[in-house]
Amino acid sequence: MTRMIIGGAQMGGIQKAETREQVVQRMLALMDQAHAAGVSYLAYPEMTLTTFFPRYYAESRADFDHWFETEMPNPQVQPLFDRARAYGMGFSFGFCELTPEGQHFNTAIVVSPTGDIVLTYRKTHLPGHAEFEPERTHQHLEKRYFLPGDTGFNVAQSQGVQMGLAICNDRRWPESWRVLGLQGVELVSIGYNTPSQNNLSRDEGPEKRLYHHELSVCAGAYQNATYAIAVAKCGLEDGYHMIGGSMIVDPDGFVIARATGEGDELITAEADFDKCAFGRSTVFNFAQHRRIEHYTRIATQTGVEVPQ
Amino acid sequence: MTRMIIGGAQMGGIQKAETREQVVQRMLALMDQAHAAGVSYLAYPEMTLTTFFPRYYAESRADFDHWFETEMPNPQVQPLFDRARAYGMGFSFGFCELTPEGQHFNTAIVVSPTGDIVLTYRKTHLPGHAEFEPERTHQHLEKRYFLPGDTGFNVAQSQGVQMGLAICNDRRWPESWRVLGLQGVELVSIGYNTPSQNNLSRDEGPEKRLYHHELSVCAGAYQNATYAIAVAKCGLEDGYHMIGGSMIVDPDGFVIARATGEGDELITAEADFDKCAFGRSTVFNFAQHRRIEHYTRIATQTGVEVPQ
Repeated sequence: MTRMIIGGAQMGGIQKAETREQVVQRMLALMDQAHAAGVSYLAYPEMTLTTFFPRYYAESRADFDHWFETEMPNPQVQPLFDRARAYGMGFSFGFCELTPEGQHFNTAIVVSPTGDIVLTYRKTHLPGHAEFEPERTHQHLEKRYFLPGDTGFNVAQSQGVQMGLAICNDRRWPESWRVLGLQGVELVSIGYNTPSQNNLSRDEGPEKRLYHHELSVCAGAYQNATYAIAVAKCGLEDGYHMIGGSMIVDPDGFVIARATGEGDELITAEADFDKCAFGRSTVFNFAQHRRIEHYTRIATQTGVEVPQ
Repeated sequence: MTRMIIGGAQMGGIQKAETREQVVQRMLALMDQAHAAGVSYLAYPEMTLTTFFPRYYAESRADFDHWFETEMPNPQVQPLFDRARAYGMGFSFGFCELTPEGQHFNTAIVVSPTGDIVLTYRKTHLPGHAEFEPERTHQHLEKRYFLPGDTGFNVAQSQGVQMGLAICNDRRWPESWRVLGLQGVELVSIGYNTPSQNNLSRDEGPEKRLYHHELSVCAGAYQNATYAIAVAKCGLEDGYHMIGGSMIVDPDGFVIARATGEGDELITAEADFDKCAFGRSTVFNFAQHRRIEHYTRIATQTGVEVPQ
């Protein structure tokens, strides 16, 4: 029986001028709050260490290499690893990864209470586009600055829980959740940076964006009988607004904690991981109910093919 | 550009004593109302012609063959086909199918305005169990009386729209939606008979059941940018209660029509099928964003496999 208090560390906007050291100080302040609240595992957002730079265009992609980390941990984030180990707290966070081979990924990790990186995930579903597109209200150049992740969705046991990761846009794709669910995931940590405005539709503002966010996370948690922590970097970044709405969802698909603002804010909930068992032994007993002979298209066909 | 008024014909409980002819009269009354409301396509529930008999146990399955149709259309339902053709209305409904080979399926069809059956679907995800289980508050013996469907999820063009079908429990499975979405579905018709009580959990009553129902349908519609009509057989059947909550959902995942009661009730909404294009050309542009190399487990692994 594993019960623990889990937390989400929502973060307000990170301006271009902020340094890694300044950001880590903000992260430490939230970690201190979490420790005081009894939190054993804390999730931070996507791209926690920097501003959401894919909104900016650079003709030479290498001009943006300074937003990437070439090792993890590194001296700037080491205080976070040290503090967590002192607290006996596990945590996850996202950052931009530049590999020794020169590959760029939008990455997240789970760190154990002993300070070991037990799970590394590279974002699969990159939204947006690769070239400057003037018809958009703002740019969203993730396909320019990152390669699609090569890790796939894996789980790792840490703190007695099957941990999984997804990043931002991944949460809208039921495939992300199901691949984790098929490995018995019990807690999915998801960071996101979601602009409040659909850059191709002026009709789609923050209300709709928050609805789609919640719908996707609650459905993914329910349909795989898993806890989820979805945590935003939000509010204003150099004049660009992103939605908040960080939340913790239970294996029944209900929101059990929710951020109220758009700044640095801790949310917590008690998780009883035994609650994952009911859904997965009944309605979502995959072994009893799934019919993979009818799912072939999902894993073999990328785009729409309308039958003639 | 295809626009039309679509409808859902929710039906109150059908008692064991009711005949097919009596049920068809109720269906015709709803069709008349739909015609008066300008409806061009009308969806009826799962197992529309009979009570939801899988709640009853029969040691000999053949004792329940009288709930099954051996041909479609047949004389009892012919008036429905005739009236729809006179109105120029397309429709869908569910029934229990006994094939010439003696196979039993939980089936639904789409009928064109000219009275042709253009799509036949046999339910993939059978919930429940195959043997009497005394620990349940009531029996749910779909796995006893039906074979898992052998059709898979197909689409057919009718009335200028890519039509798809799913039945009851299928709506909780994102695989159902995605296989249809990968074929460019624009309207998914879903009938259901959902007991108000989870038969293995006294904590899960109608409020939770309605939430999970809506969550699943809205997520499926949003994530595949399709309209959906989800329509209940509901209220009391010989003392057993089933949830209502029939609704029409737009390709953005929003409920645009909703039943208010638990009896025979028509819901309608105007559908502009051009609205399917936005989602599927942006956030859910499958060709641009899906990464099938990471989805292998979905189509090759039935049950959970926890990595060691």
